[in-house]
Amino acid sequence: MRIKYQKLYDKFLEVLLDRGFEHKKAELAAKIFADSSLDGFQSHGINRFPEFIMMIDEGYVDIEAEPEKVEANGNIEIYDGNLGPGALNAHQIMEKAVAKAKKEGVAVMALRNTNHWMRGGTYGWQAAEAGCGAICFTNTLPNLPPWGAKESKLGNNPLVMAIPRQEKHIVLDMAVSQYAYGTLGEYEMKNKDLPYPGGYNKAGELTTDPGEILETMRPLPAGYWKGSGLSMMLDLFSALLSGGLNTFLIGKKEKEHAVSQLFLVFDMEDKINEETTEQTVDSIHSAERVDPEQKPTYPGEGTYLRRQENLEKGIPVQKEAWEKLNNL
Amino acid sequence: MRIKYQKLYDKFLEVLLDRGFEHKKAELAAKIFADSSLDGFQSHGINRFPEFIMMIDEGYVDIEAEPEKVEANGNIEIYDGNLGPGALNAHQIMEKAVAKAKKEGVAVMALRNTNHWMRGGTYGWQAAEAGCGAICFTNTLPNLPPWGAKESKLGNNPLVMAIPRQEKHIVLDMAVSQYAYGTLGEYEMKNKDLPYPGGYNKAGELTTDPGEILETMRPLPAGYWKGSGLSMMLDLFSALLSGGLNTFLIGKKEKEHAVSQLFLVFDMEDKINEETTEQTVDSIHSAERVDPEQKPTYPGEGTYLRRQENLEKGIPVQKEAWEKLNNL
Repeated sequence: MRIKYQKLYDKFLEVLLDRGFEHKKAELAAKIFADSSLDGFQSHGINRFPEFIMMIDEGYVDIEAEPEKVEANGNIEIYDGNLGPGALNAHQIMEKAVAKAKKEGVAVMALRNTNHWMRGGTYGWQAAEAGCGAICFTNTLPNLPPWGAKESKLGNNPLVMAIPRQEKHIVLDMAVSQYAYGTLGEYEMKNKDLPYPGGYNKAGELTTDPGEILETMRPLPAGYWKGSGLSMMLDLFSALLSGGLNTFLIGKKEKEHAVSQLFLVFDMEDKINEETTEQTVDSIHSAERVDPEQKPTYPGEGTYLRRQENLEKGIPVQKEAWEKLNNL
Repeated sequence: MRIKYQKLYDKFLEVLLDRGFEHKKAELAAKIFADSSLDGFQSHGINRFPEFIMMIDEGYVDIEAEPEKVEANGNIEIYDGNLGPGALNAHQIMEKAVAKAKKEGVAVMALRNTNHWMRGGTYGWQAAEAGCGAICFTNTLPNLPPWGAKESKLGNNPLVMAIPRQEKHIVLDMAVSQYAYGTLGEYEMKNKDLPYPGGYNKAGELTTDPGEILETMRPLPAGYWKGSGLSMMLDLFSALLSGGLNTFLIGKKEKEHAVSQLFLVFDMEDKINEETTEQTVDSIHSAERVDPEQKPTYPGEGTYLRRQENLEKGIPVQKEAWEKLNNL
């Protein structure tokens, strides 16, 4: 079924207000969840919303808390998220970082003790809309085995990189596992094989069967040893610079919370019209194709197409997800 | 054959002095090449040195040039490398960035119009030795097809991330292709298959045969679409922030030069003894193993073992490489 953006937004807003969110915050949180759904990221939109509400109901997320500046290491500002709603915390820090970058060229803000920021791309788009470039990342609970190991000791630590353009921003939003858990779940639901091996089966062999991977909980790091190494570095940078928890300690909690994040923001207002970006985009678009029908794309390009289509036709949601939302 | 570190260093130094390098610069460049060889990265050590000399002889590298601060965007310092030796330029920028980070918490320096920095890890180790964390990257000539394309339009843009520790630093040094060209060459020379598919053969199929990949020049981005997207972002950040050339324009040159680089350096002096890092290292070491004989490692861990062994026994080099060096 398809639901109009406004209808979905209104429903999110209603539930959030019902849970006691202050009005402005409820509006922003509803917009973030609705935008993720609109852009086709249901796993961090409508499908994730009930878990977010559950985390509030169970006391893991404090809906009134806000990030608080606790210290600074020179120009690195360090914030405590006070276990507030992850998306609101991250949005506020990105807003502060954009303002600082516009004054000082660059802003580095480290956030500890926060909650899941939902779709990482949200903050990449936010920076790009404001004319800034951004590199930001979060750590997570352990959900990815290090290269050469069977046990999840690393997180899939999403990494976001954004470059602003006049019209269509370039936004990379990637977990360091080859497939996010949400993607594995979607393939399993559709009873489809993954296009490339995404993890290990019980026999310890690489498999394209999403169900087998969800069973072993052994997804594959993107680029094998490379994603594994990258995950460790993202965890250490976010935890060390924020003074927050690393993936190891997050794994000791009953539920994933109190994560650490890092936001690097660069003023790029005067770079927006630069030929550099357009040359790069054009060279990718015009490259000789593997499949003549499939144009190579830049990160975030598909998002625009889905956004446009879903704005017009309504957002495709599963019936069960819509019902679940209406029962919150 | 094995060559003692000092002997290799002396030979590099002799050639560099013979080419007219100022003594201090010759010593530093000789050390960088010798250290890369010592750590087992021959592709950027002894095996690369003749090409570096050729680039000087052909006028692409100006041995007297130094990076020059040309402008600043707030706290982002922008340097022109004046086509000086890439390793010396990068080393000098990292030195400046470390000094600035120690005063201000963080330093962001963008370098344009420089040359190949050889082994990227060099600057990660340099930062870590000085008690700083670092994220730095370079763009390259086009040598990697975007995901969905057959033609090389992206670079394999090495990404370096370093975290200092008391004794053994953690240094990730990765090209965004699954295998670096040097690695493909090594496997081919040994007549060995790659452990995992590393690119495409003439039929457009993924292959583990390094020779087939060197023939098509279609290596695989690490993590398929993920490495492809990451490559584009690294290129744009380094070119836009430095005001330098992107991979597209570097590809228009006769030889790879005038590349763009970005150095992000974080003061971490007071984080060096933090439990955070040791917990993360320990959790990876103690994870249940795939192969009981193979301990999962952190980025850079293998480097220490090779360094120790090669210091004691001498550096393993190919006879031809040693002869080539002696004929320069």
